[in-house]
Amino acid sequence: MTLIVQKYGGTSVNDPERIKIVADYIAHTKNRGNDVVVVVSAMGKQTDQLIRLAKDVSDVHPGREMDMLLTAGERISMSLLCMALSELNIKAASFTGSQAGIITDTFHTKASIVEIKPDRVVTALKDGFVPVIAGFQGVSVEKDITTLGRGGSDTTAVAIATALNADVCEIYTDVSGVFTADPRIVPNAKKLSSLDYDEMLEIAANGGKVLALRSVEFARRHDVPIHVRSSFTWEPGTWVKKEDKNMEEALVSAVTHDVSEAKITATKVPDKPGIAASLFRELADKAINVDMIVQNTSTDGNTDISFTVPRTDLETALKVTKEVLPQLGGTEVLADSEVAKVSIIGAGMKTQPGVTALTFETLAGCDINIEMISTSPIRISCLIRQDAVEQAVQALHSAFDLDK
Amino acid sequence: MTLIVQKYGGTSVNDPERIKIVADYIAHTKNRGNDVVVVVSAMGKQTDQLIRLAKDVSDVHPGREMDMLLTAGERISMSLLCMALSELNIKAASFTGSQAGIITDTFHTKASIVEIKPDRVVTALKDGFVPVIAGFQGVSVEKDITTLGRGGSDTTAVAIATALNADVCEIYTDVSGVFTADPRIVPNAKKLSSLDYDEMLEIAANGGKVLALRSVEFARRHDVPIHVRSSFTWEPGTWVKKEDKNMEEALVSAVTHDVSEAKITATKVPDKPGIAASLFRELADKAINVDMIVQNTSTDGNTDISFTVPRTDLETALKVTKEVLPQLGGTEVLADSEVAKVSIIGAGMKTQPGVTALTFETLAGCDINIEMISTSPIRISCLIRQDAVEQAVQALHSAFDLDK
Repeated sequence: MTLIVQKYGGTSVNDPERIKIVADYIAHTKNRGNDVVVVVSAMGKQTDQLIRLAKDVSDVHPGREMDMLLTAGERISMSLLCMALSELNIKAASFTGSQAGIITDTFHTKASIVEIKPDRVVTALKDGFVPVIAGFQGVSVEKDITTLGRGGSDTTAVAIATALNADVCEIYTDVSGVFTADPRIVPNAKKLSSLDYDEMLEIAANGGKVLALRSVEFARRHDVPIHVRSSFTWEPGTWVKKEDKNMEEALVSAVTHDVSEAKITATKVPDKPGIAASLFRELADKAINVDMIVQNTSTDGNTDISFTVPRTDLETALKVTKEVLPQLGGTEVLADSEVAKVSIIGAGMKTQPGVTALTFETLAGCDINIEMISTSPIRISCLIRQDAVEQAVQALHSAFDLDK
Repeated sequence: MTLIVQKYGGTSVNDPERIKIVADYIAHTKNRGNDVVVVVSAMGKQTDQLIRLAKDVSDVHPGREMDMLLTAGERISMSLLCMALSELNIKAASFTGSQAGIITDTFHTKASIVEIKPDRVVTALKDGFVPVIAGFQGVSVEKDITTLGRGGSDTTAVAIATALNADVCEIYTDVSGVFTADPRIVPNAKKLSSLDYDEMLEIAANGGKVLALRSVEFARRHDVPIHVRSSFTWEPGTWVKKEDKNMEEALVSAVTHDVSEAKITATKVPDKPGIAASLFRELADKAINVDMIVQNTSTDGNTDISFTVPRTDLETALKVTKEVLPQLGGTEVLADSEVAKVSIIGAGMKTQPGVTALTFETLAGCDINIEMISTSPIRISCLIRQDAVEQAVQALHSAFDLDK
């Protein structure tokens, strides 16, 4: 018997009508003879509404209480979904993160899963039930309610699929898969039928919003095949799985862009060992994820260091940098929010040269200046002016023949 | 140190503004040097909204899933209340029914508490926290989420007060206490400063809405003093506690009325042993609470049996009665929803005669016919026409000098 984990995001269960449609599809899958485990997010704007309530009540939001508050969302969606399934004569039972055995560390609002004990889910499956599990939530080793942070429901789905050794983890969303670029910017972007984990990781880490980065990392580590697809059209979507050795790898699979980062530059820093280390240690201690880093070649014994951080962390990062720099002998700290990152991603580029050259030529041809560069074996990212991002994505998509 | 359990109902925490007001008062109580444990209901109309969602999604509402759904309500109110307390520099931590150790049986939507293991609440108190506990909910011996049914939050509060050996259980609501009659019907009804448990039980069982019957039973069994009061005026309310042997008991404390019942009459039932028993066994098996029962004196070997049931159970009760009666040789089953019950309640009446006579005289003086009568040592209840209920309550309130 095939065991399918199906995860439905907030837009998929936005209102009673959508919940009925999703229940229909689950019943259909179950009635074809599959075992089905469902992971569900809170309904549409529910989480936003709860956050607004918290702001109306208090300026102080302890993480433990935020987690208690937000986990009300999935309770509502999952119990409603079970009722809709019951009406279709499908036995269904909802499980909170705690009841499903999602054990996390104690970092409220962004906890990590440390263990999964899905005994109750396994029993429910054996008894012919469709277990419906709350996404996004868990219970800490200290028995407090936790949430997994952004994209947490995807992570729950992949983690449960791993723990149950499921045949596939289907992630249902409001788009029909992973595209060669954002279709709002590149209208003739193509849906990719499959990707390997490394490519999907790079896409998720560089502006692709379809799958949460942590869920892809989890799937890659445990080799869980993911099928990203639409709960509105139900058509086949994009498979994310282990690289198939027999297939020729695409030179470039996708062009992504990310406008959520900001650039900080520290000028005239003495060019001696340990300077950069002490700055980035301070930033890391504040849990700020630094993405691209560029240090210029020193000419007069001083150097400029530029790096990017999430724009939401810009204020804190600036404060930290300004505090640290004088001690290190630096001069000035500059901030720039008007940047964007475009990335070319493809598993094939690690064996085929020329991608870097074509990328630079393409951007140059558009008269777009590259401010920073970072690369991985299967990715090239360029930081550019934000107002040039659409033009850059379109030009690169075309230059690498992705619209064919 | 005094340990106070404070329970806030839905209207008390109706919106962010109310939650802030309640937090202020809790902080005030705490800062005066008391230990405080809070039990809170879902915000205002939250439960109704969730029930509406359930109806929109499905006609089938398994109890387990209804309980999962409805318990989202207290999660929201209790975490918000903790945030508001944090802003006032009061350490607060929310606990679900499960986390607070409210262990129940497995009867979903109307579970009974079987045990309380408040270890986490005790630890939180020791650590200087205000524990904020979800009312209405528990976890079953089979580890499923349960709810305690109507008035469940009052029961949670009294149960927690018992388990913690609290000095008082304060029940905050939108009225300022227990009155000699419903002030909407009797404008000069007086607030009672104190009542004993037995009187409060009779009031709660006979139409008084301020305290849930089960919570009074619990408080009586464990001798927990209850103080019913208003979270809008914060003035002293009504104490419910053990009868004070030194005080003279009021002959009559209150007149209550109840329009939530309906009368069923089974006519011409053979008057032989076991007939009534088999009917009421069938009704009990359907979990229908029969209240008043009257069987006429047999004249021709047949008798009429009349009884009242909650109007919400009328349909089921009629069905059961119609099924059972032919087997027993009965003739006809009549239903009547246009009835009301008025009750005179007072601990003093058990030692002083004349209350029954004055009750009947008063109703007769208003030309109100009494259709059924039931009594306890401290109560007389009369079933009358529903359209006469206001007149009856007013006349009895006056006849027993309750407006003085």
